[in-house]
Amino acid sequence: MSDRPLRIAVTPGEPAGIGPDLIIALLQQQWDAQLVLFASRDMLLQRAAELKLPLTLHPYNEARQELHQPGQAFIQDIPVATRVEAGILDSTNGQYVVETLRQASSKNLSGEFDAVVTGPVHKGIINQAGISFSGHTEYFAHQANIADVVMMLATQGLRVVLATTHIPLAYVSKAITEDRLHKVIRIVHEDLKDKFNIPRPRIFVCGLNPHAGEGGHLGTEELDVIIPALEKLRAEGLDLTGPLPADTIFQPKYLEQADAVLAMYHDQGLPVLKYKGFGAAVNITLGLPFIRTSVDHGTALDLAGSGKADTGSFRLALQKAIEMAGAQQ
Amino acid sequence: MSDRPLRIAVTPGEPAGIGPDLIIALLQQQWDAQLVLFASRDMLLQRAAELKLPLTLHPYNEARQELHQPGQAFIQDIPVATRVEAGILDSTNGQYVVETLRQASSKNLSGEFDAVVTGPVHKGIINQAGISFSGHTEYFAHQANIADVVMMLATQGLRVVLATTHIPLAYVSKAITEDRLHKVIRIVHEDLKDKFNIPRPRIFVCGLNPHAGEGGHLGTEELDVIIPALEKLRAEGLDLTGPLPADTIFQPKYLEQADAVLAMYHDQGLPVLKYKGFGAAVNITLGLPFIRTSVDHGTALDLAGSGKADTGSFRLALQKAIEMAGAQQ
Repeated sequence: MSDRPLRIAVTPGEPAGIGPDLIIALLQQQWDAQLVLFASRDMLLQRAAELKLPLTLHPYNEARQELHQPGQAFIQDIPVATRVEAGILDSTNGQYVVETLRQASSKNLSGEFDAVVTGPVHKGIINQAGISFSGHTEYFAHQANIADVVMMLATQGLRVVLATTHIPLAYVSKAITEDRLHKVIRIVHEDLKDKFNIPRPRIFVCGLNPHAGEGGHLGTEELDVIIPALEKLRAEGLDLTGPLPADTIFQPKYLEQADAVLAMYHDQGLPVLKYKGFGAAVNITLGLPFIRTSVDHGTALDLAGSGKADTGSFRLALQKAIEMAGAQQ
Repeated sequence: MSDRPLRIAVTPGEPAGIGPDLIIALLQQQWDAQLVLFASRDMLLQRAAELKLPLTLHPYNEARQELHQPGQAFIQDIPVATRVEAGILDSTNGQYVVETLRQASSKNLSGEFDAVVTGPVHKGIINQAGISFSGHTEYFAHQANIADVVMMLATQGLRVVLATTHIPLAYVSKAITEDRLHKVIRIVHEDLKDKFNIPRPRIFVCGLNPHAGEGGHLGTEELDVIIPALEKLRAEGLDLTGPLPADTIFQPKYLEQADAVLAMYHDQGLPVLKYKGFGAAVNITLGLPFIRTSVDHGTALDLAGSGKADTGSFRLALQKAIEMAGAQQ
């Protein structure tokens, strides 16, 4: 590792949304890293003026060594096509959003940066701009030539990882295969070691069915797929507990022992995480060759420019990225 | 309504489990109702002696008017077949357990009682005794000649009702029909009015798919089934919100407005309820012609007779039953 400071790429995301507001607000505090915004300089200065917050932007280059100073930031300037009005989507700026992601991921892949933190994008407007875009995670995986990534949501005291993510509920049972579980659990295990500095990760695994199938009475995927998959991975030395019923696994006696809880699908794991997180959850992509964290909310166009948007999730995303990048040094 | 006191039937459930322990412990405190145990007198006195707790049992008859006195209770004596040893299941007592439920439900159906509170039973040992028994809820529904009942779990500040309960996850999508939703939501609406004294119940409804289907991109059941079902019920005057994504519905801003949250399936609604409830959740059966509450845990045979079992859920089940019965007077 070089002697340069921790260097974090930040993409504020959709320029008409609350992403710029949140990062401008968060730049006013101290951070133990160098923060570099991948965004339009003019858009950010205009939004800072609207929010009546001080903001000085310095052109970024790789030789810069300074840590963050409140009210300032480094910028990799990427111009917008059309002047931005807070709250008003404009598809002519769709290409701009993707370009901020492209440059941030490229400089993370090359090792010039230690992590990327992403603000919320608006998938619809990017697709309206004629660019096929299904999400940050898929975009970064594609840029990095990676087939399998895993979505983690984390909040104080709880990390939830998902075996399946954004698919209809009716497809979940078929999507839970031994192969998928092996890939997901190995990624989680390796990233908990490498990115979270946990030498021997303990992963707690939910069943697919109510009561984890109750010995086959409420579904057989536990017996046919999940238990055999876990057995093989245990034989490789992984520390796995489960499958346990989802309505008992999220209890203090288990959570205290778990470095991560693997839910089989979106609505099995995320309601309790978001309830516990109370607006302060962070999305972390595992399996990428770099650290990527993200807010867990959308663009909230109606709040853009108002100064009323809650910085909780973006703050946590920055904190987590800095913490994880620091642990790798 | 008669002038008699609120009268609550209590079935301690499996005699070798923690049910007797918990009710004996809870009888030591004050309750604003008459509590009548449907159980074996000898078994209870023996367990009380093991737990070193005072217990005086008075034979129940309908003329008794006294409210509960700490350390005492009324008893509808139902003898066990074989002397009970705490922690040791005995199938010769399977018939006894079902008989306690039969007598309690019969006296609730006749109006002699205002509610029944059930302790945990062991389905396996009842079935081993040659009696087909799939659960309290099904048993009471059958006794009452009722086809559709709804499972509610409640804790401080949150009531969750389930559109489907103990079926494999792979069957859930097909089980969510307009007909099922109509029946479930009408039962919830009526019981919130009648049993919870909420004049205009507000019910919040989860989608089936992640992000409630995201406009059809993540599943079509919301568009095809759930939204049309809710529209018809709204036209009848029901106050329904949703379908909303399950990972946003359990937020304070929604929960403050919701008298109940309808989850489409078991693991969508119960993990967050049990996490929030922290061992103090109560199971309430809606749709029956009487009030029935229950603990949300099992028989915990290893703790029976030890005095170490947590009374939280049984206490809440009793409190809820008394509160609901009182609201009907």
